Amino acid sequence: MSAKGEGNEENVIYIGNKPPMSYVLAIVTQFNSGSSEVIVKARGRAISRAVDAAEITRNRFVTDAKIKEIRIGTEAITNEEGRTSNVSSIEISLTK
Amino acid sequence: MSAKGEGNEENVIYIGNKPPMSYVLAIVTQFNSGSSEVIVKARGRAISRAVDAAEITRNRFVTDAKIKEIRIGTEAITNEEGRTSNVSSIEISLTK
Repeated sequence: MSAKGEGNEENVIYIGNKPPMSYVLAIVTQFNSGSSEVIVKARGRAISRAVDAAEITRNRFVTDAKIKEIRIGTEAITNEEGRTSNVSSIEISLTK
Repeated sequence: MSAKGEGNEENVIYIGNKPPMSYVLAIVTQFNSGSSEVIVKARGRAISRAVDAAEITRNRFVTDAKIKEIRIGTEAITNEEGRTSNVSSIEISLTK
């Protein structure tokens, strides 16, 4: 089992509410540390920011990175009151 | 050239600032009018809504629809003052 392979937690970048460049930096750092694949994950409104981060990385910083796969899905989220709602998700796999 | 084929303007749904269900309705209507493929396009913050619309369509209304392809990109937008900025884009192709 490779530490640099697909699906380990190390090469997954979760997109939150920070500015896109914070996540670009995280992605670039992950590639520079030797990963050949970085997976960018986001839910809900952060999905747009995930696409921004992947595109900025590819266009400006890691120009040999390719989009290997993009998956979208729906996740059930339970809030503090125990109510469940659905939220969309995205996973963008970048490889170089 | 088929009127129902890929790339004609008729089967493209552009996602804007309306509620996601407006676009779900447009996608479902397009499938019901005989299209075998519907392309959902969005830019910037509407990207999250495009994923919502595709997922709601697939999960609740057109359950035999599959995601054929998802593409992301960057488009240059020129504003009223003539300044250019980059905006991320997404295209989700749904087929059944």
